[in-house]
Amino acid sequence: MDLKIPYLLRSKNICYFEGTNFYIGNRKEFPFKKNFALCKNTDEIAQAIKSMVTQGGGPLQVALTSLIYVANLMDKGIVEYDFEIYSKNMQTIINSRPTNTTMKRTINTLLKKIEAEIDSLNTEQFLHYVKEVVAEKEDELNNIYNNMGLWGASLINDGDTILTTCFAEHTLILSLYYAMREGKKIKVLSNETRPYFQGSRLTAPSLKEMGIPVEIICDSMGSYFMRQGEVNHYMIASDLVCMDGTVVNKIGSLPNAIAANYYGIPCTAFSMSPDVTKNDKSMIDMELRDGNELLNVFNHPISEEGITALYPSFDVIDANLVTNIVTNKGIFSPVQIGDNF
Amino acid sequence: MDLKIPYLLRSKNICYFEGTNFYIGNRKEFPFKKNFALCKNTDEIAQAIKSMVTQGGGPLQVALTSLIYVANLMDKGIVEYDFEIYSKNMQTIINSRPTNTTMKRTINTLLKKIEAEIDSLNTEQFLHYVKEVVAEKEDELNNIYNNMGLWGASLINDGDTILTTCFAEHTLILSLYYAMREGKKIKVLSNETRPYFQGSRLTAPSLKEMGIPVEIICDSMGSYFMRQGEVNHYMIASDLVCMDGTVVNKIGSLPNAIAANYYGIPCTAFSMSPDVTKNDKSMIDMELRDGNELLNVFNHPISEEGITALYPSFDVIDANLVTNIVTNKGIFSPVQIGDNF
Repeated sequence: MDLKIPYLLRSKNICYFEGTNFYIGNRKEFPFKKNFALCKNTDEIAQAIKSMVTQGGGPLQVALTSLIYVANLMDKGIVEYDFEIYSKNMQTIINSRPTNTTMKRTINTLLKKIEAEIDSLNTEQFLHYVKEVVAEKEDELNNIYNNMGLWGASLINDGDTILTTCFAEHTLILSLYYAMREGKKIKVLSNETRPYFQGSRLTAPSLKEMGIPVEIICDSMGSYFMRQGEVNHYMIASDLVCMDGTVVNKIGSLPNAIAANYYGIPCTAFSMSPDVTKNDKSMIDMELRDGNELLNVFNHPISEEGITALYPSFDVIDANLVTNIVTNKGIFSPVQIGDNF
Repeated sequence: MDLKIPYLLRSKNICYFEGTNFYIGNRKEFPFKKNFALCKNTDEIAQAIKSMVTQGGGPLQVALTSLIYVANLMDKGIVEYDFEIYSKNMQTIINSRPTNTTMKRTINTLLKKIEAEIDSLNTEQFLHYVKEVVAEKEDELNNIYNNMGLWGASLINDGDTILTTCFAEHTLILSLYYAMREGKKIKVLSNETRPYFQGSRLTAPSLKEMGIPVEIICDSMGSYFMRQGEVNHYMIASDLVCMDGTVVNKIGSLPNAIAANYYGIPCTAFSMSPDVTKNDKSMIDMELRDGNELLNVFNHPISEEGITALYPSFDVIDANLVTNIVTNKGIFSPVQIGDNF
């Protein structure tokens, strides 16, 4: 069984640029259309991320590619060659999503590295240097994804049905791939993931593309199958892991974590980078989105004009509800996170 | 504060007939259109119920009105005047939904009563008699709804935010109405209730019509608000209550009942008629619907062609997760149901 990374996770399909044109794979339209949102500058890139053109791990890849994009614009003389300006452009992007801090922390670390070199380089050398820095980080990320996939696979048993929410990207996809390559027979139930249907639109087609059996269910159905004994594992990504083992992930993750706990089913979260700056859950910067976003589904209203809605976009899952956190350093229980990061 | 029963619950808006034309208020289109599905005979009425034109308490009202509808067709000479035929027409209707047994049990009781009289009556007298039987039952139901509303209101505290799933009809609506009339300040969070959005389409507009503050949330968001301490009570209808206190209700009820239990929030189910023939949960006749029903939302696909889905339509809520069952005989703990029915 060969690994064929599904369409959505191939780097070129997440984003790329040509001159001033920055293209972001439009996850809001997938799988109905495979098109790209065109951004003309970093403000527009930030706006595209805010409006969910890309999400999950997408923004990190967009930010990494933007490091090269802006360096290239400097080399072409379109943006002034100055680190303050370079950094400001990047801050615009990394401030577009507050809750998931991986993008911000990764880019700020790289910016420090880049800042130390900029004075000794001309624009062409600078562009070349940034490309190297980004390529090195991408190699590192691919290694991390791969290791986490192997560790994730070790938690999956032959015959398991795995429930998941939203689009858990490389780490879950690779875990499932390695589990199957190890000869384990597996099946996935994918929550559709309202309001944007990432589960039905992104996860289910990606798993199908990889030959992994998948069924879509509504977000309210996970506990039905747990009660029936038809789910063996709840596996999700995480937008943030705090040092106290708190996991933040897409809204809809908490009810399944509570039900998994109630029915004695393990709950595993993937986190390639627990946030050492967040000691505990009180430090989470929670993104609240506009309730109007859920009042229309594919441009059709779901209720009468004038009725309002609430849209908290992330769930906070207290550490006691989480069984395993698969990280870049291995598998930990939530209580071990603080000591290992 | 005067009681104004909302549009959807007014008897004439649930169903009515003119000659052979039987009209069922189309809950699949509400609130976007206020139209009626036209049925030409009891087969078509059964089919309309199966396809969810009406749901919840609607089928009971449809079946009661059908008792008169068929009697009228007999009086007009369109249907042969024969109890076997009368009964067969009614069985077609009451077999259209297997899990909720209230319609079946109510109609079978009335049929026995009617059967005892039919030989002594001509068609005109029969029609008149059936009208009386149905009117008596409707009066009884209205009394039950009213009492349950008063009992339900007694469980609601001033300042409560009540979470609900699907469309809990008269009993919840009246409970909220009486709570407000008693001067209690209340608010409702209405789960949108995939796949048919009864929460956003039926519950939210009905509450708004009655002046009850309501916000729509996605089905996955209830536990978020429970964890925040922003929900004080989970209140739902029930399609079936067994003698062991098991509550069966719309899919999506279980995860909220588990979360309510986890966060120490009461879970109350309304049941105007616990089923004495169902000793325990093993006797539930579970309706499984076609997974395709959730793959399209307002005629727009939610995933790629060829990907499949599962649609269990009801949740089974074990008695230990339920705090109160408000019945026609008063408020009971689930463990008291067997002794009181």
